[in-house]
Amino acid sequence: MATAFARNQWYVAAYASEVGRTFLARTILGEPIVFYRTGQDGRAVALADRCVHRRYPLSESRLDGDTIVCGYHGFTYDTSGTCVFVPGQQRIPRTARVASYPVAELDSFVWVWIGDPELADDKLIPRAPHMADPEFVTVSGMEPIDCDYGLLVDNLLDLSHETYLHGGYIGTPEVADTPITTDADEQAGIVRVARHMVDAACPPFYAKSTGIQGRITRLQDIEYFAPCLYLLHSRITPAGEQNPLFRTEITYAITPSAPGQVYDFWAVSRNFATDDPAVTEFLRDFNHQVVMQDVVALNILQKALDSESAGYQELSIGIDAGGLAARRILAQLAAQ
Amino acid sequence: MATAFARNQWYVAAYASEVGRTFLARTILGEPIVFYRTGQDGRAVALADRCVHRRYPLSESRLDGDTIVCGYHGFTYDTSGTCVFVPGQQRIPRTARVASYPVAELDSFVWVWIGDPELADDKLIPRAPHMADPEFVTVSGMEPIDCDYGLLVDNLLDLSHETYLHGGYIGTPEVADTPITTDADEQAGIVRVARHMVDAACPPFYAKSTGIQGRITRLQDIEYFAPCLYLLHSRITPAGEQNPLFRTEITYAITPSAPGQVYDFWAVSRNFATDDPAVTEFLRDFNHQVVMQDVVALNILQKALDSESAGYQELSIGIDAGGLAARRILAQLAAQ
Amino acid sequence: MATAFARNQWYVAAYASEVGRTFLARTILGEPIVFYRTGQDGRAVALADRCVHRRYPLSESRLDGDTIVCGYHGFTYDTSGTCVFVPGQQRIPRTARVASYPVAELDSFVWVWIGDPELADDKLIPRAPHMADPEFVTVSGMEPIDCDYGLLVDNLLDLSHETYLHGGYIGTPEVADTPITTDADEQAGIVRVARHMVDAACPPFYAKSTGIQGRITRLQDIEYFAPCLYLLHSRITPAGEQNPLFRTEITYAITPSAPGQVYDFWAVSRNFATDDPAVTEFLRDFNHQVVMQDVVALNILQKALDSESAGYQELSIGIDAGGLAARRILAQLAAQ
Repeated sequence: MATAFARNQWYVAAYASEVGRTFLARTILGEPIVFYRTGQDGRAVALADRCVHRRYPLSESRLDGDTIVCGYHGFTYDTSGTCVFVPGQQRIPRTARVASYPVAELDSFVWVWIGDPELADDKLIPRAPHMADPEFVTVSGMEPIDCDYGLLVDNLLDLSHETYLHGGYIGTPEVADTPITTDADEQAGIVRVARHMVDAACPPFYAKSTGIQGRITRLQDIEYFAPCLYLLHSRITPAGEQNPLFRTEITYAITPSAPGQVYDFWAVSRNFATDDPAVTEFLRDFNHQVVMQDVVALNILQKALDSESAGYQELSIGIDAGGLAARRILAQLAAQ
Repeated sequence: MATAFARNQWYVAAYASEVGRTFLARTILGEPIVFYRTGQDGRAVALADRCVHRRYPLSESRLDGDTIVCGYHGFTYDTSGTCVFVPGQQRIPRTARVASYPVAELDSFVWVWIGDPELADDKLIPRAPHMADPEFVTVSGMEPIDCDYGLLVDNLLDLSHETYLHGGYIGTPEVADTPITTDADEQAGIVRVARHMVDAACPPFYAKSTGIQGRITRLQDIEYFAPCLYLLHSRITPAGEQNPLFRTEITYAITPSAPGQVYDFWAVSRNFATDDPAVTEFLRDFNHQVVMQDVVALNILQKALDSESAGYQELSIGIDAGGLAARRILAQLAAQ
Repeated sequence: MATAFARNQWYVAAYASEVGRTFLARTILGEPIVFYRTGQDGRAVALADRCVHRRYPLSESRLDGDTIVCGYHGFTYDTSGTCVFVPGQQRIPRTARVASYPVAELDSFVWVWIGDPELADDKLIPRAPHMADPEFVTVSGMEPIDCDYGLLVDNLLDLSHETYLHGGYIGTPEVADTPITTDADEQAGIVRVARHMVDAACPPFYAKSTGIQGRITRLQDIEYFAPCLYLLHSRITPAGEQNPLFRTEITYAITPSAPGQVYDFWAVSRNFATDDPAVTEFLRDFNHQVVMQDVVALNILQKALDSESAGYQELSIGIDAGGLAARRILAQLAAQ
């Protein structure tokens, strides 16, 4: 029951800060891609990570200016993927080129288009403006998980698991107990899940980072832009007060790598205590621990599923409405 | 040439001492099962180790009283496998239950029935009464082996390998040289192999643990109750004397875990030097070493077989009569 | 696109120095073989490494004189593979024998014939006489590589990769730039590739080991005797002088082990500084480093190819003439 890949879509390939003058190799939707940045104008380049000659990974090569020199026999490519040098002869075969991928830098991510390059339109990229907004401070990371990317979508669209898998961390009883509202715009490929807790326990990490004592109003509003971008707009305020003071924007990019492998990009942006580096370091460690709880659980879950006989069944209940809507949308996108 | 699994049978899942108030996960005949003991009456419980919701292993969960709370989203099951809580809603779906397995505690083992629960009859369980007999002292252990469980059955039903694989340990030349008698009751599913050595070298470990000097009469009487329980009734006495004084009951439970994986439960019970803890410690270490010689050899053998082309051949001789009878019985049990 | 195995051929199984009175297990063309040397006349013996009884590896056994005693149940074989003892009975089954393989010792290698033993003719073995020539000093080693053996053949028949993969070691720009001449005798199964550089940079290791200062004439003449033996006759002399003074004979034996696995035997024999052990040690380390660059690259390349979809394409140019000829010959040999 692997989730099919949706092509002709933008995917987050890397944080902008990961792409530079050394090679970054990532496999996206099964396609090996090498990323680097030109020296002249600092533009991000994405080329197929296989030399046309004998399929040696170009990421095992070296840059010569802005050209990439294959580390095996020296086939050399420019930023468009065109071969400009082959060893031992002057004539370069006409078909000597590797695919280049459309890329876009937006909101501190490097996005790559997987599919027909003619269809790449960077206006289609969903936005996460807080990632580059000076009013917010962001901590972030990326964890590869050995699981179907659909398991990570499931995980993020149903936050009731916070109470159990992340109990004592970000979960409280109210998260599992509070009903959700789900709204799926299958046409636009967007799923929204809202859970509004008006009188809830304040998880210790929030008490520590905001200074709130006592109970809180806690609003969780998810927006999932299939297939790749997930935003959780989290707002808290002391119970009984108006106007949420404390906004946290949690961003996930869910990038399928290969069957059974997904890149889990996570970022937590806050608009409070932004000039307190101790809070930043605390939240970096804390959120990394929370993410690793998911990583461990999803690795375990995938292993369990891999040992299932073919026709295993699931049982869905109310909390799964968002995840099921996401599955339908992903199936439609993959079928297109 | 993997040995087929025989369902509708009792299998040893654990030593009784292994099952308690934390979870024990074992896979038996390919079925993942979680074992624990109730707090109220100390009864052993065996449930399918997969939550009905998203198939998360329940063994990665926690006990709440005698209920098991899934570590991912909190689905909660009672000891019968019935779901008694789901998150975010009051209504529990009628189909929310996991399979529970019939269990029986006997002779210090926890047995589990794999197959149709209606057919589970604990009078069918073969007995190893010495395991809980105060006249005997037992050392025991369990080793998982990465081999077809049929290879372990082969191994145990032909003791001529003691002379070679366990030479200097439990084997002497007489074991390989002495003819055996084999008696297979295919109706009852029992194989008996006897080897009676009337004037044999005394292996050093027997000399050390019994005090015998000189040659011995050594009787080896195997009873194999297919598919799971193997008893070796070993009796020795100084050569020429009557009435074996020194009885050792060697018990193996051979529990198929998954294709190519078997649990090797081993126990050695003696009726001599029972109040000498030094002998107990010596025999625990010694027998563990002997078992590990088998574990290493069977891992090697399975790897060798895995690299064989499909139609490889074996050559059987007289010593294999017991093993071949066991294979026929296992094939019949699996076909039923 | 795995390269098919060519049977009815001689293959290098080991250096003669590797075969002695303990067992050497090697898998050649998928056939597990155990090698040892008789005590009486020091002859190398090669037997199928699987006991006829239950397929236990004989290499996990022990020698008793010149017979091999299976470590599991004691089946005992003489040097012809005939079983001379079985446990528990006098009668030895007529079919109790393991295959013995024709072997030949030549030029410090132990060669083994894979195929119909009737066709084994040691006059067919290609020669590497410098390996045992007192005028030469040889350093050597063997590295198993997890790649199709065809990738190693490709690697060795196109030395333009010296400039890139081994840049700063054995490569200089002239190697990639100088055209080659290729001559394939498909009837005899021999490929010859020549690259003659008349005014070339002297790689530092040659400067160090020969004492040459300045530019050199560098002649590289490859002879590949499909499927197993590869010779690179390398001659250098100071630019402008006649008569190459410095001869290096580089020998590779390319022995397919199993699909995706190859034994890479490498040896470097020189006719200069033969009485200088410091040069010998330097060249041993240096050439081992160079070989490991190939090993690492071929392991990477095979992993890349394994992740390719079925119909991937290569692009061949002039430098590949030798490798393509070798592929044709190997395909013919495999088809015979």
